[in-house]
Amino acid sequence: MEKADRKTRIAVVASVLIKNPGRSYSLKVFCDMFGAAKSTMSEDIAILRNMLKTYGQGDIEVTLGAGGGVKYVPLLLPEDKTGMLFDVARRLSDPSRILPGGYIYTVDIFSNPAYVCAMADILAGMFNKTNPDFVATVETKGVALAFSVARALSKPLVIARRDAKITEGSVVTINYLAGSSSRMRTMSISKRAVSPGQKALLIDDFIAGGGTVHALCEMMKEFSITVVGSGVAIATALPEKKRVDNYKALLRLEEVDMAGERIVIHPV
Amino acid sequence: MEKADRKTRIAVVASVLIKNPGRSYSLKVFCDMFGAAKSTMSEDIAILRNMLKTYGQGDIEVTLGAGGGVKYVPLLLPEDKTGMLFDVARRLSDPSRILPGGYIYTVDIFSNPAYVCAMADILAGMFNKTNPDFVATVETKGVALAFSVARALSKPLVIARRDAKITEGSVVTINYLAGSSSRMRTMSISKRAVSPGQKALLIDDFIAGGGTVHALCEMMKEFSITVVGSGVAIATALPEKKRVDNYKALLRLEEVDMAGERIVIHPV
Repeated sequence: MEKADRKTRIAVVASVLIKNPGRSYSLKVFCDMFGAAKSTMSEDIAILRNMLKTYGQGDIEVTLGAGGGVKYVPLLLPEDKTGMLFDVARRLSDPSRILPGGYIYTVDIFSNPAYVCAMADILAGMFNKTNPDFVATVETKGVALAFSVARALSKPLVIARRDAKITEGSVVTINYLAGSSSRMRTMSISKRAVSPGQKALLIDDFIAGGGTVHALCEMMKEFSITVVGSGVAIATALPEKKRVDNYKALLRLEEVDMAGERIVIHPV
Repeated sequence: MEKADRKTRIAVVASVLIKNPGRSYSLKVFCDMFGAAKSTMSEDIAILRNMLKTYGQGDIEVTLGAGGGVKYVPLLLPEDKTGMLFDVARRLSDPSRILPGGYIYTVDIFSNPAYVCAMADILAGMFNKTNPDFVATVETKGVALAFSVARALSKPLVIARRDAKITEGSVVTINYLAGSSSRMRTMSISKRAVSPGQKALLIDDFIAGGGTVHALCEMMKEFSITVVGSGVAIATALPEKKRVDNYKALLRLEEVDMAGERIVIHPV
């Protein structure tokens, strides 16, 4: 293979980093890939960083010293973020989404990679500094979103299941009351999936009363795990007081008016 | 903003395409982004394509004519593919994974973005030409894998649920027998999630008897949807005859020897 020139090195480094967001690569990996000196690669990466920033394509974090490295952080420009969230809000406010009981149909949004990945990148950017050991969620609707946040942060995902399966191995199970309905529900997490002392970031698609996120916090306590943050895509305006205090939301659902066939939802 | 030079254009195009695999962009998007001529952008993209191929970073598909465009396809080099699958097989053959009943614990692998995304890229490459309208799976363990395949192909994901929720809207439900246990199980798909005449790619983490994938095929028939392919991460060697004929697997699980504490699994 002939020696790579600067534009090749920069494009290939961009490719490796962007394909694996949140993962830290030592400079040596790239030096070996191209047979280039550290100073050359440092310069390439500084140039790439500027290019990505200029075109709103995210950031590259460089950590110096032993164990240091470079990693890609998928940040969105404020205007792209706002545009994306307004687009999702507009789609979600279609009155044909109203379901019996005042629920709204959101499954298509939370299964569409374009929306899921953009929302996940925003959430990952919000919680990037909390440095969790894993991302946790409760099955099923939020799994794609939580997995995409985990991917953006390059951390594993832990899924609390409604009903434990034999393939989970030994589990810890808790019972809790789901906010609005006051029905008793169950969630389980595999003992193998987590270790005491770890830090968890909780991600879910939707928060209303906060019963599920609260239960997930309780579950983490059972495992002696610290919750470093909670992020949701959609939070209902009411009840104003949720069962968890510190959560961040992307969209606020103000009203589902079944009689008037109207949904009011907007970016936070 | 000063006019972008070739290395900037190439790096930024790489970033946009790789962040959104499978999504087709018209050349005009990039011409407008850089104030560059179509011929210039075509040349840039041809150069980028060569760079990515040379370094095993995937391919760029160019479709000419009206409605044409460029899209990124995350292909792995044969040696990288083999290396990754051997690594997963090695991890999965750790005897501490053996669970009661001869099951093996795989949750950590199917929740780890590094493994999930690599396996998904391989599966997406296998089924890229089938051009499905959506990817379908059954909750819960395969959701991250199926979502990642959907992301690589830029198609929506459809999740069949074990128990229908009110937030799914109207659903179609079928009952079926799960292969080995002959227990009756249920799966439901939201009527809003799919349309008659569409093409589905089925993705799951595991196939033993094939009862679940078979049931998902039956479900698709209910919706007058054509199944264009079925891909799984792990297939058991036995029973040799599955309830579905045409499936592709990445890994074959030959044996779980509970007495000898041995798991035999290898790339297909």
